Amino acid sequence: MDFVWTNGGVCAPKGFKASGVHCGIRKNKTKKDLALIVSDNLCSAAAVYTTNKVYGAPITVTREHLANGKAQVVICNSVNANTCNADGVSKAQMMADLVSKQTGIPASDVIVASTGVIGQVLPIEPIADGMEQLVGELNYNGSEDAATAIMTTDTVKKEFAVNFELGGKKVTIGAIAKGSGMIHPNMATLLCFVTTDVCISPYMLKKALGAVVVDTLNMVSIDGDTSTNDMLTIMANGLAGNDEITTENDDYIIFKNALNEVLTKVSKAIAKDGEGATKLMECVVKNAKSKQLARGIAKSVITSSLLKAAVFASDANWGRILCAIGYAEGEFDVSKIDVDIVSSKGKVTVCNNGAGVDFDEEVATNVLNNDEFTIVVDMHDGEFDATAWGCDLTYDYIKINADYRT
Amino acid sequence: MDFVWTNGGVCAPKGFKASGVHCGIRKNKTKKDLALIVSDNLCSAAAVYTTNKVYGAPITVTREHLANGKAQVVICNSVNANTCNADGVSKAQMMADLVSKQTGIPASDVIVASTGVIGQVLPIEPIADGMEQLVGELNYNGSEDAATAIMTTDTVKKEFAVNFELGGKKVTIGAIAKGSGMIHPNMATLLCFVTTDVCISPYMLKKALGAVVVDTLNMVSIDGDTSTNDMLTIMANGLAGNDEITTENDDYIIFKNALNEVLTKVSKAIAKDGEGATKLMECVVKNAKSKQLARGIAKSVITSSLLKAAVFASDANWGRILCAIGYAEGEFDVSKIDVDIVSSKGKVTVCNNGAGVDFDEEVATNVLNNDEFTIVVDMHDGEFDATAWGCDLTYDYIKINADYRT
Repeated sequence: MDFVWTNGGVCAPKGFKASGVHCGIRKNKTKKDLALIVSDNLCSAAAVYTTNKVYGAPITVTREHLANGKAQVVICNSVNANTCNADGVSKAQMMADLVSKQTGIPASDVIVASTGVIGQVLPIEPIADGMEQLVGELNYNGSEDAATAIMTTDTVKKEFAVNFELGGKKVTIGAIAKGSGMIHPNMATLLCFVTTDVCISPYMLKKALGAVVVDTLNMVSIDGDTSTNDMLTIMANGLAGNDEITTENDDYIIFKNALNEVLTKVSKAIAKDGEGATKLMECVVKNAKSKQLARGIAKSVITSSLLKAAVFASDANWGRILCAIGYAEGEFDVSKIDVDIVSSKGKVTVCNNGAGVDFDEEVATNVLNNDEFTIVVDMHDGEFDATAWGCDLTYDYIKINADYRT
Repeated sequence: MDFVWTNGGVCAPKGFKASGVHCGIRKNKTKKDLALIVSDNLCSAAAVYTTNKVYGAPITVTREHLANGKAQVVICNSVNANTCNADGVSKAQMMADLVSKQTGIPASDVIVASTGVIGQVLPIEPIADGMEQLVGELNYNGSEDAATAIMTTDTVKKEFAVNFELGGKKVTIGAIAKGSGMIHPNMATLLCFVTTDVCISPYMLKKALGAVVVDTLNMVSIDGDTSTNDMLTIMANGLAGNDEITTENDDYIIFKNALNEVLTKVSKAIAKDGEGATKLMECVVKNAKSKQLARGIAKSVITSSLLKAAVFASDANWGRILCAIGYAEGEFDVSKIDVDIVSSKGKVTVCNNGAGVDFDEEVATNVLNNDEFTIVVDMHDGEFDATAWGCDLTYDYIKINADYRT
């Protein structure tokens, strides 16, 4: 199957408009703070959310609105998370009502999301005042404006789209996301809004999203903190005209694979743009006894603070890799483990059969001194693989988070 | 019961000698690297170890030596962890043999420990060459030398001793420890060697150690990394002359409480001297539904990277406290939670019933701008309490760990 990457983000699929404006939740007027995505028609829709027991008020509202598997709009503000506020749910509901009033689309078909500081009352006035402009600027090339408006400490916008064929029809999946900090998703993650013109039933859409998220966004960690506002949504408007997917047929498999490709791109982009990060750290675990074990080990490696600090300095301190493997949950034979470090600058084997091997430190440093590298852990103990994505831990992570509210 | 703090560390109890020398594992000659603790007689002994599946060779040897609940000596080197080395176990055994040869004490009564870089072959020659001096310098005031020799990136030595009475006899517990980085103990921690002249059976000693460690050293985290070499040992030589403790009688309870006091001091000292730390962060969880939940929430709060970076800047970003409470395992009612921040500079309430309250940011910053502070989380949901200890996340943590091997 050919997946062809294309431009246009969430507006790449047929029938999706988007916009982004500065409404005034953020003081700095040069940076947008309110985003809108609207489908021309009602969509099959699904979402996964944070598992944090302290969760944002928008999640309460969105969960209710998606109960019927249908939606048509995403509204999202940055700067303020609308979480831990006594009036949070009513404010989130107001956001949906304001969209409804301006667009004529029922409030119950609006997905509401917020991201930013936790525990500050959300001012609704700027959103009310900005809604006319936000809806007025909706257009079929608006993805970039929306992608920019949802950014917080992100340094680059995350926008992807892929074309592929389904039953002879050209179909498209698009996505925008924000990441950066408080990123250690569990069942969902950060904010990621996916659109597609594929025709698929709400049930099968939910199934595909659940299947793909465990190996993509749930395999990202920036700092071990699971956010209160993680939300990944998908809207499928069916305008591509393919036969509706209602069972696990070949088209479903192709769609799921395409969604996996898109969310893998999103995952890597989020990890690479982690707060303060200078490097994308990928860990590929091969030949583990179970899928769960492979995932657990990969994630354990990319979350180790000690390893993250070492790779910032391009130091091949592989003992920290073994240490992080060792405290992953589950049982396995340490004495079978091989570890390689690989980048576009070369490859170095640092561990064979669980013990160190002589390697050239200079070569290893050179391999690590790259903006992307991969740690390959071969368990020689089964047939299951998994990949996780993280980043280095740098002075700038401290700087960003010591200063975030000020 | 009166616990009176005293000097002398592991040599404060009757009949314990110690020493520490520079033998040459470390290149810098001004810093010791080999420590010895010897009891005048054979002791009841117990230990808890790291749960990391990649564990140091010394743990294999020590576990075997402590199988009979008896020991007389601790030998420990710093700089090199003797972990992930093909010849690790034989080298650890050699360390015990060298001690035995020089002291006449059976090798099977020697506790062996190592701390330092993982995955570099341990040179045995410096240890062999330094053994005569190490044993020659053993003395009843040698605790400080031993405490210094086990330090790695620690900035202060950790040495504690407490006197109390047991059945009319004055008894003493002493301890030395090293901490700093790769600290997120699970069932054991870092290196901590405890001595006592209390007379107690090996079985009851093990029981007391297991009971106390869960609320002390297991409640410390510096960076979420569970070391491969964590080891906490206790030797009780019985020279205080109290009636031997062989059941859970009153004396056992007193002993356990005293041990809890000592290990609490050790825990706080280790957290406060975490790599790069400028502040001790304590989290007290009150009135939780279960002990496990109280522990889990307290530990979740002190391990949040985002919170750790915020408190470095004395920023009362309490939303991050709620976020970290929220991703702790277990079920609880967020809407009942109150949060206070307390230090010697005052107290500020930041959250009532799970939602933010207006507070003076200047007052809050002042409370946090202190070398120790406490986050008090009241769950209003039961009767169980727990306390955990961590530190702030600073530029120096990155510096230390980006540079550690170079």
